[in-house]
Parts: sequence; C-alpha cells; structure tokens
Amino acid sequence: MAKEDGITVKKNEDMPEWYSQVIIKAELADYSPIKGCMVIRPNGYAIWQKIMDFFNERIAKMGVSNAYFPMFIPEAFFKKEAEHAEGFSPEVAWVEKKDEEGQKLALRPTSETIMYDSYSRWIRSWRDLPLRINQWCNIVRWEVSDVKLFLRSREFLWQEGHCVYETEQECDKEVMMILEEYRKVVEELLAVPVILGKKTEKERFAGAKYTTTMEAFMPDGKALQMGTSHNLGQGFAKVFGISFLGKDEKSHLPWQSSWGFSTRLIGAAVMTHSDDKGLVLPPRVAPIQAVIVPIIFEKTKDAVLKEAEKVKKELHDFEVKIDLREEYSPGWKFNEWEVKGVPVRIEIGPKDVEKKQLVLVRRDTGEKKIIKDSEVKMEVKQLLDDIQKSIYDKAKKFLEESTVKVDNWDDFMKAIGKRKLVLAPFCGEEECEDWIKDKTGGATSRCIPFNQEKIAGNCVQCKNKAKFWTYFAKNY
Amino acid sequence: MAKEDGITVKKNEDMPEWYSQVIIKAELADYSPIKGCMVIRPNGYAIWQKIMDFFNERIAKMGVSNAYFPMFIPEAFFKKEAEHAEGFSPEVAWVEKKDEEGQKLALRPTSETIMYDSYSRWIRSWRDLPLRINQWCNIVRWEVSDVKLFLRSREFLWQEGHCVYETEQECDKEVMMILEEYRKVVEELLAVPVILGKKTEKERFAGAKYTTTMEAFMPDGKALQMGTSHNLGQGFAKVFGISFLGKDEKSHLPWQSSWGFSTRLIGAAVMTHSDDKGLVLPPRVAPIQAVIVPIIFEKTKDAVLKEAEKVKKELHDFEVKIDLREEYSPGWKFNEWEVKGVPVRIEIGPKDVEKKQLVLVRRDTGEKKIIKDSEVKMEVKQLLDDIQKSIYDKAKKFLEESTVKVDNWDDFMKAIGKRKLVLAPFCGEEECEDWIKDKTGGATSRCIPFNQEKIAGNCVQCKNKAKFWTYFAKNY
Repeated sequence: MAKEDGITVKKNEDMPEWYSQVIIKAELADYSPIKGCMVIRPNGYAIWQKIMDFFNERIAKMGVSNAYFPMFIPEAFFKKEAEHAEGFSPEVAWVEKKDEEGQKLALRPTSETIMYDSYSRWIRSWRDLPLRINQWCNIVRWEVSDVKLFLRSREFLWQEGHCVYETEQECDKEVMMILEEYRKVVEELLAVPVILGKKTEKERFAGAKYTTTMEAFMPDGKALQMGTSHNLGQGFAKVFGISFLGKDEKSHLPWQSSWGFSTRLIGAAVMTHSDDKGLVLPPRVAPIQAVIVPIIFEKTKDAVLKEAEKVKKELHDFEVKIDLREEYSPGWKFNEWEVKGVPVRIEIGPKDVEKKQLVLVRRDTGEKKIIKDSEVKMEVKQLLDDIQKSIYDKAKKFLEESTVKVDNWDDFMKAIGKRKLVLAPFCGEEECEDWIKDKTGGATSRCIPFNQEKIAGNCVQCKNKAKFWTYFAKNY
Repeated sequence: MAKEDGITVKKNEDMPEWYSQVIIKAELADYSPIKGCMVIRPNGYAIWQKIMDFFNERIAKMGVSNAYFPMFIPEAFFKKEAEHAEGFSPEVAWVEKKDEEGQKLALRPTSETIMYDSYSRWIRSWRDLPLRINQWCNIVRWEVSDVKLFLRSREFLWQEGHCVYETEQECDKEVMMILEEYRKVVEELLAVPVILGKKTEKERFAGAKYTTTMEAFMPDGKALQMGTSHNLGQGFAKVFGISFLGKDEKSHLPWQSSWGFSTRLIGAAVMTHSDDKGLVLPPRVAPIQAVIVPIIFEKTKDAVLKEAEKVKKELHDFEVKIDLREEYSPGWKFNEWEVKGVPVRIEIGPKDVEKKQLVLVRRDTGEKKIIKDSEVKMEVKQLLDDIQKSIYDKAKKFLEESTVKVDNWDDFMKAIGKRKLVLAPFCGEEECEDWIKDKTGGATSRCIPFNQEKIAGNCVQCKNKAKFWTYFAKNY
C-alpha cells in the first residue's frame, strides 16, 4: 500500500485533517463539487442502513409507521408558528418556481409544518390517536459552505418522528421512550456514550415546550448533539387546527412530539473510535465484520483457498469477505482493511492449514491471537462482542475524564480553555447563557442532565440562584 | 361504515375518480396543499418498503451497493451532455440560492451528472470496475400541477442505479439483467404483467445509446411505463472525464448503464387489481395479509378472543392483525378491511369456536370458505398464493385481450380509438412517430418488444419499409 493511501497525520496533532482523511480513505464519504454538500459512499451508506434497520424495528414495536411527506413547504406554513419560523428562517433555501398560487416554497429544514397540515385533516376523534409517524428523508439547511463530512452539510439524511397524543402524560412518556431508543442506537450500536438531559430555554427547539437531548463528547474536546426528542406542547396543534373529539364528545387540542437524528451519528462514531491507522468501526454496524486474507504461495494455494472458503462458510452468521485479489500482497491488504476499519482480520497461510489454526487480528488494539480453526465461530463472536464493548468502555472513560465539575467562574473558564465538558451550577436564564458564550468564545449549554445532584448556591456566572447542574462545552 | 367511507363510483364508469377514492380511502396516499405533490401515508409507504427490501436483496447479489449523492446539481453539469440537458430542461426546478461560485443549482430530475462527476475521481483502473451503485431518493420534475396519486407528481420517490463497465458486452448483459429484476418486482411482487422491449429512437432516454423498458397496460386503456434500464454507451464517460487504465496499461473509456423505477409502481398495482369495493392488494406486498375479525357477544367474548389469539399465533409467518375495536360492528369492520385491501379476512364467532372452524373470505373474489381451525396455517398460505396468482392471471388476460395486432392504418386508428394496445409494423423513424401521435391525439410508441415475430411489408403509417413490430397506445 502506498504511503499516501494511509492516514498521513496523527489524530492528536491535526484532528480535522485526520478526520477527513479517515473518512475519505475508508471511502465512507466524499466531498462534492457543490459547496457545503457531501456524497455518502457505499461503505458509509451501509452503516446508515444498519442504523435504519435497527431503529425501524424498534419504533415499529412502539406503533410508529413510516411515511413520506413533500419536501416543499409553503411559506405560509412556516409563518404559522412564529417562534419556529424565526428559528429556521436564516437556514431556509427556497425554490425559484412558485406554486400555482404564487406562493414561495422552501426545501424542508424540518417537516413539522407540512406534516401537521395533513394531520389536521386526518385526526377527527380519539379513535385516531395516538398517531405516530416517522419519515426517513433528506433535509436542507443552508448553513456555512464549509462542509464537515457527516457532521455539518447543507443537505443531510435523517429521520423525523411526529406523534400526536390525547394527553400531556402520554406525550411526556413517549418523548422519553424515544430518547431511550436513541440512546440504544448510539450506545449499543455505535458504541458512543452519551449524556441524556433537557436543553436549556435558549437551546430548546424553536416552537417546542421542551427539548430532551443526548450529547456526546468528541476527542477534540467538542460536544456533539446526537439527537433530540421534543414535547411540542399544544402550540402547533393550535395554529394548524389539529383537534379531536374526545370520549367526552367535546373538542380538544392534542399534544405533540417530534424527534430526529441524522447521518451525523456516523461522524460521531468515526471520530470517537478511529485511530492513526484509519477507521475503527463498531462491529455491530461494520458492513464487513471480518475479512479473511489468504496467504498465497503457488504450491499451497489450493489448500489455503479451500480453508478460507471453509472458514467463511463456518462464519455465515457474520458479514465476512475473503480477499482473493492476486494483484496485491498480504501486507498491502492488511493495511487496506485497517484503513477501512474491518473489526477482525483472519489470516490463513500454509502453516496455519497444516496446524489447523487461524490467526485473528483485532482492529481496535492490533492484538493477534492464534486459534484452532474448529473454534473460529465462537472465537470470532467473542472477539466482535469484546471489540464492541471495549471501544465503548474506552470512549466512556474518555467522557468521564473529560468532565470537570466546577462551582466558580475561574475554574469554569480554565476548564473550557482546556476543552473540557464542564458541569456547573446554572440559573437557566437566556441572557446569562449568551454572556457565557460570549466570554468563553463559543461555549454553549449542552444539557441539563436528568441525573442531577443536589444543588445549592449560585449560578457559576451571574451569581443569581442556581437552578440546576448544566453541562457546557464548545460544540459542533 | 358510512356510505361516504366506501367507494362511491364504479371503476368502469369514472376511473380517475374511482382511482383517487380507492387510494384516499385505503389511506395509501393523500393530496398535498402543494400543487403537484402528494403525501405517501403509512399504508402506501409500507408497500414501497416491501418493494425496496425485495429489490435491495436482489441487487446486492449482483454486487450493487447503495449510496447517496447530493440533490443539488450545478447547471454546468447538466449542460455537459447536450441531449440530456435538452431532454430534462423543461422540467427542472432551480434553487434560489446559488452556490459560492454563483452557479445555479437544480433539484435532481435524475442523477447521472452529479454521480458521474464523482465517478470520474473514483475510477482509476480496471481494478475499480465494474462499479455498481444504486440510490433511493426523491426526484423533482416540475410537470403539470395536476397530480395523479403515485402516477404523476412533481416530487416522487425512486431508485436509480448507475453502473460502469470495462466492456460493451458486460454493460449490455447487465442492462438486461436489471430489466429482468424489474420484471420480477412487477410481475412476481405486484402481480402486474408487463411487456419487455426497447424504446424507439424518439422515446429513448436523453443521452442513452438505447433504452429498454417494461410496459404495463392499465384498465382504462392507457399504457404505463413501469421502469427503464439504459445502456448509456460512452457518451457520459467522455464528457465527465471517466476513464480507466486497462490491463493493457492503456487508457480506455468505460461503458455505463442507468436504470430506475419509482413509486408509480404502486399506482399501477392499485389500478390493475382494485374493484368497486376498494383496494385489492397483491398478498406479497400487503402490509396486513390477513385480518381476524372476532364476532363478539358478551357471553362468549372470552372464548372467541382466546381463539383469535391462538389463530394469530398460528399464523406468525404472515402479517396478521386482530381487529379488537369494540366501537365498531363486525359488518362495519368487514367493509373497512375491504376498502383497505387486506387479502384475507378471518371471521371467528361463537359457533365457529364450538365447531373448531374458521371462516376465510378472500378479498379478490369475495368467496367464503369454512375451514378446520387446525388447518388455518396451510389454508391461509394457499389462499394468499392463490390470490397472488389469480389477480396476476386476470390482469394478464386483460392485457392479452387488450392487445390488437394490425397491419394497416384504418385498423390502427380504430384500435387506438377503442383504447387498445396496438401492435403494428413500424419504420422506427422519429418523424413518422410524431405524425402518429398527432393523428391519434396522443398515442405514442411504448416499446419494440424483444419477442418479435417475423416482419415483412411496410410501416403502418408512412408506408416505408417496416423495421419491427412496435406497441403503440395512449399512455400516462
């Protein structure tokens, strides 16, 4: 493998360049000639597909169905919910063509308004509730042109769920159920630990009653919002005219939730686990979980290939590839599969065939293990489970070590300066938060964790009474 | 069930209104406040999901991977392939925002150009070929504002495959392999018979060397193009700078294919199979394959519900729902599930429990059958298979009966007047085809079937020498 095909910078020396190289060289994604946009290549899309499959199965059990709504949103819809309109207006891209009534059409930055217009016609009585719909689609937010692969782009893929309930209690309950499903996707599938909590008033979704969130912390000392689940209250129902006839024969406003995560999750997993050799993928989302590299010499070729096929068959429960290319050396192949993040490499040479053994190499630590070929299924299963667990544990340890609890402004500034995730007593006021952002050169509140310790004393900044412990950090 | 919840017009009296009612009342889709757009509701999206799952599995076996490319296409890309640009320009919607270079951006009407720009960077040598990529995405074609649910809308969902090969032969071969996979989706999953063939010069895809197609014929006497698979030749490769270093160490232009089908397939299945009572769905794509309606009386309720649960468990290989709603009568429920197209209804009343029997009712014919409850699994399986086959056979018979073979202009005009699918000897010239369209008030060539009988004599219209038998019809 040529040197330029490997990663040429170190993770801890130039993380943005390292991150970009890991993604480009593992062929997860590519830059696009359209500024601010990215191409998701097959290796990256396969991860997204696994996330979609996992999540679809989970939400189907909750009674959520998938659907598809138009990408075009009439200007008048945006304007109906004032706070929502204001929140999104700087990022909205409009289409040149107007509709037949001469109305401007936006490309959806989120679909609350277009969906709730339909909901207002579909919901008549309590029999129609709860209504639980999700869609997988592309989203346009015309942000900065400086694309960060998977993390920030003008078009991205996501899912957005939009549910309607008879009561506030049901709505509250399912907002939290979804956040828990999100946690499973991120912690159990992607092996990225998260902190669950509520957004502050300032960071709340535009138009929501409250926003719950899961926040991860990246190795470069920046927080990354991984997904949010909102209780929208009754505000959208009111302006979109969604009401239902209750069992009491009276008309009521329903309660609504919305929730979304995006392809950004892939970026978080890549940045968290990968290393100076390239991509490290959690086995549960790896498109190839194990690659068999036969070591070919002319005389023993047949026996080695036969063994490789046998091992592949034995491993039919996993996603396994045999690398049969003859134009590359084994060493070249080892490097390539490391760059591409395949969790387990299985080497088979003539000596291994003789001794009825196999060499397993794990991607995360590089450890080698020689095993009996008869035990390959059990060994690979254990190894994949172990990699999944140990990359999570490593990330969890980093998260814990990066968290600094402070109770005064000096320590707060120092910790932010060291790119830490800072837990501090906070008053919750928007003005105070603006001031913190200003003074720290960009630190924002990430969440008010559900897991709250007892609080006494004053806000870390304004010295008014503190309401809750809150996480602050610079962020993506 | 109230009369207005059922279908209020007959299929053979007002097909457009009937078609719209079937879809709206089965909740497959809905009109949207944005002119020319539609909402795909959960019942409709579940069918699309089944089509996606089936097709994804098939193309994965052919070595095709899924990916995702930007929706925005720079104006300059369109212009590169002149015929392609001209073919799509009337339908293109542009974004108000320009990119950083001041370039206009289109919403993709198809993705050849944006994908091939990336391909030009990804393909270096024969080792990178064949490259086979597919994407599932939304497409924008700013046509008439008069939406026809699933059949014609300004935004729709589709898949588009884009492959690159070393040789023309490989390309030809896989163009046909994909068409055969398309046939399977449509005939085997959706039970809609199709005719396979080539498009004429006039109907060929803009920029392709040739276009293969599958064409269905709707009960209102209009043909419907169900999917196309193109050999693009080397034209796009040339203008997008895609070349590869061959095994001969020389630079070569590759061959390319592209192929697509859309959510329109759902519309074709609905129109073909449904009847005056509402939706009829092919069992293989029905989101609910059998619905159990327990007949509840207070005294025997427990026994009936217990039996319903037992039957559902027995049928765990199928998608089965028990309708437990107490606020509706059994008769109301029967009607509702007929409107919604569930292939099999299972009625269980107290007498049935006593006699250890069940009543099965098939949606397509309305036939009732009393069976032993111990045989429900086998009986339901047979019934679903039988429905799948018999709705296909019925549609096939209609297609055959609608086809008229003619060899002179008088008969041609008569057959088109009777809304038939006309097979006629044709010269293949674009001018002649324009004339036919003009004189018939809109009949176009549908395809030159692969299945060609010997041809002699002259073109049905211009009297020049006929080249091939060609299908003509009015179309969607």
